[in-house]
Amino acid sequence: MIKQKVLHLIFTLLPVLLFSQSKDSTIIKSIFDESLTHGKAYNNLKHLCEKMPARLSGSANAAKAVEWTAQCLKEMGADTVYLQEVMVPHWVRGEKEEATVSTKAYKIPLSGNYQDAKDPGSNVTTRFAVCALGGSVATESTGIKAEVVEVKNLDELKQLGESKIKGKIVFFNRPMDVSCISTFDAYGGAFDQRFFGPSEAARYGAVAVVIRSLNVSIDDYPHTGTLFYNDSLPKIPAAALSTNGADLLSGLLESDPHIKLFLKMNCKTLPDTISYNVIAEIKGAKYPEEIIAVGGHLDCWDLSQGAHDDGAGCVQSMEVIHLFKTLKIKPDRTIRCVLFMNEENGARGGKKYAEVAIAKNEKHIVAIESDAGGFSPRGFEVDGKDSIANACLNTLTNWKPLFEPYGVYLFTRGFGGVDIRGLKETNTALLGLSPDCQRYFDYHHAATDNIDAVNKRELELGAASMASLIYMFSKYGVK
Amino acid sequence: MIKQKVLHLIFTLLPVLLFSQSKDSTIIKSIFDESLTHGKAYNNLKHLCEKMPARLSGSANAAKAVEWTAQCLKEMGADTVYLQEVMVPHWVRGEKEEATVSTKAYKIPLSGNYQDAKDPGSNVTTRFAVCALGGSVATESTGIKAEVVEVKNLDELKQLGESKIKGKIVFFNRPMDVSCISTFDAYGGAFDQRFFGPSEAARYGAVAVVIRSLNVSIDDYPHTGTLFYNDSLPKIPAAALSTNGADLLSGLLESDPHIKLFLKMNCKTLPDTISYNVIAEIKGAKYPEEIIAVGGHLDCWDLSQGAHDDGAGCVQSMEVIHLFKTLKIKPDRTIRCVLFMNEENGARGGKKYAEVAIAKNEKHIVAIESDAGGFSPRGFEVDGKDSIANACLNTLTNWKPLFEPYGVYLFTRGFGGVDIRGLKETNTALLGLSPDCQRYFDYHHAATDNIDAVNKRELELGAASMASLIYMFSKYGVK
Repeated sequence: MIKQKVLHLIFTLLPVLLFSQSKDSTIIKSIFDESLTHGKAYNNLKHLCEKMPARLSGSANAAKAVEWTAQCLKEMGADTVYLQEVMVPHWVRGEKEEATVSTKAYKIPLSGNYQDAKDPGSNVTTRFAVCALGGSVATESTGIKAEVVEVKNLDELKQLGESKIKGKIVFFNRPMDVSCISTFDAYGGAFDQRFFGPSEAARYGAVAVVIRSLNVSIDDYPHTGTLFYNDSLPKIPAAALSTNGADLLSGLLESDPHIKLFLKMNCKTLPDTISYNVIAEIKGAKYPEEIIAVGGHLDCWDLSQGAHDDGAGCVQSMEVIHLFKTLKIKPDRTIRCVLFMNEENGARGGKKYAEVAIAKNEKHIVAIESDAGGFSPRGFEVDGKDSIANACLNTLTNWKPLFEPYGVYLFTRGFGGVDIRGLKETNTALLGLSPDCQRYFDYHHAATDNIDAVNKRELELGAASMASLIYMFSKYGVK
Repeated sequence: MIKQKVLHLIFTLLPVLLFSQSKDSTIIKSIFDESLTHGKAYNNLKHLCEKMPARLSGSANAAKAVEWTAQCLKEMGADTVYLQEVMVPHWVRGEKEEATVSTKAYKIPLSGNYQDAKDPGSNVTTRFAVCALGGSVATESTGIKAEVVEVKNLDELKQLGESKIKGKIVFFNRPMDVSCISTFDAYGGAFDQRFFGPSEAARYGAVAVVIRSLNVSIDDYPHTGTLFYNDSLPKIPAAALSTNGADLLSGLLESDPHIKLFLKMNCKTLPDTISYNVIAEIKGAKYPEEIIAVGGHLDCWDLSQGAHDDGAGCVQSMEVIHLFKTLKIKPDRTIRCVLFMNEENGARGGKKYAEVAIAKNEKHIVAIESDAGGFSPRGFEVDGKDSIANACLNTLTNWKPLFEPYGVYLFTRGFGGVDIRGLKETNTALLGLSPDCQRYFDYHHAATDNIDAVNKRELELGAASMASLIYMFSKYGVK
């Protein structure tokens, strides 16, 4: 009898469900069509990258990017565009870093790191491709020179202890595990060297730290990224060598463990300064108080144009506004595009945004972040309180047939994004766009993260995936 | 009762099934690990690309590539390596092509196609980035010059008919449809212009054809590719303009429909020549007569290194041999790596291979081709006689959980590959590796298809996907 009722209900509802599914798939198709044929994401990214590269918090280009993106969002027809003030750290690299080793001449593969040509037997200087880690202190203005201790991890450092470390430069040289299918897992497995390495080395009296760049490729580009200074320990300078440079230094140490590395870094931390999150809204027609946030971070490291990290996420989030406006889709719930400031070295923008949202008792039902590169989208990761995240994942699983035609098929529990994680304590489902990740760490935080590393269609597909999912959330909510 | 029997059977078999699945997943993991950590595919591709670019059938580099890959396969430890003779066409481009239009000076966006600077009002020459289509006849040695009729498709050409076409150059300018999610679908939708356009234009008296390159990007690279001459019609010269060049020519025609295009092409077809398919085997331990073929095509167009098309497919197929040998996996069935000659302008290698296989009554259970670029693998397409293809698809669907951890999730009916399609009339399941396709047509048949367009990990994942699937087929057969 119950079975009959259910069957009856299904047959009664079926036409409605089918119609609705078919209408949704039509709108989603129009979103993808528009994004791929007349989308603005790529040209916006090109402009942002070429005119406002190196948008580190506190920089002139970060300020320009705030103004320019706000203007764009106004021109796209957002109902409201405003800036949310946030105090940010202001670290500057200063003059280009130097890292050299002077040795008796001998042959070693050079690829980008080079030895000055001299007579055999005389001293040669090997120059390494190097960059300060973000937030690092400088060396003395004349540089420092010390012997080098190579370690593979923090445990090894601890075992060596003060007797072996004191007065030396610690060289963390554990490569990312290239056998990980997800390069983010490989990054997670090597990240501690960069983040905790400097203070942990200082604990045992090290005078500086150099790390092997967190890069899956073997090349000549050092990759920067933020470090963590433990306030109870001395702050020592820390820099990254390119992966080729790390192999070269390791080779030199094998030949002679007593070689000395000269390191000169000129970075400094200036006083905190004012910056902004850029916020734009399309007001929901039925439930304006229910907010769907979508964002990326506007700041980037100073070495590149910040194309994949995270210009891509910004222009994709802006594109959501553009697509809804161009296609005249009126969302039932409010869509809010947020371009966060300072993800790279403080995440102050994300923190500020969550603080204000919580203080105002705003009701965010979903927050979506794109901060994993502008590559072909494969799915979304879902985070949040368990009950919320599981309900959201269930909803997404039901919607999967709508997304599979676009190659978007992978909906899993996972991580939403650094900038939106402050909303986790609220009842918000946190989603991260999950693109194909094979190429990301070739560019991440290195001088190569430029517009020429971004494929137009891949970027556009990501924007359309976010806009389509937001269309569904705006219509049906999270569960 | 039947239900109980089934349940009993399941519980009896479950440990076996689980053990087997778990052992298979362990071996597949070892294949991916090895490919990503010590794989030879990328270095082999780099060598092939840099030392033997432009491997068009009949060229010296095609011959070098035959020798070098055969040598590699021997060094990898294949049980047998041999060459299969095949007569191939021998077309040469000759001196670089020219395409120019002389007009009164006026401003037009140039991007790569440039106008000689002169005084306003005087004549300027616009030079187009151009290349002959493969197999085209040359123009007269002094070139030809004629008015241009722009059409979007073959229907429009037919409607214009002889009165509008005779003595003119037909310009096919229908872009690939960028709203297609699959770029292969977009290619399929524009392909007729290049393939049938030249003879169809000749039918109405055209003196030459230029086409808009089959490229989803707007850039300055002309894309070549083969054309089809209908033997009952005059053979007229046919060339491709870059997408930027096509837009430029279209703009010039809009300003003045009577401009004349000068075209000079120096290509010619030499007598057929001898070349080879390269074949290497690992003999099956249990069912040596059952063959699993895996291949790509060794020839490529003359404009580039042929990295994605199809150096990638060759080194991935070679890597299958390498991975089995290195990991000491002894296949139950015979694995045969085939590097086909002449896919691009004749497909003679594939035809020859099928002819010989059929004549020898060989039993191919599966043939897999990789000829869609060395990008992140997403799945496999399955072709063959319906009963065979459906059975194979069913098998693959059961194996899906083994492949999903590697991002390989899409198993569908579709196309296997040009080189293996001759086996369709036999009882062979034909599979095509299906990588992410967004970037493929940026490089396809253009001067940009070089090693720097290939990501090492993406290439390696494709090789491991093929090797893993072959491991499964070698153990379990197709159904």
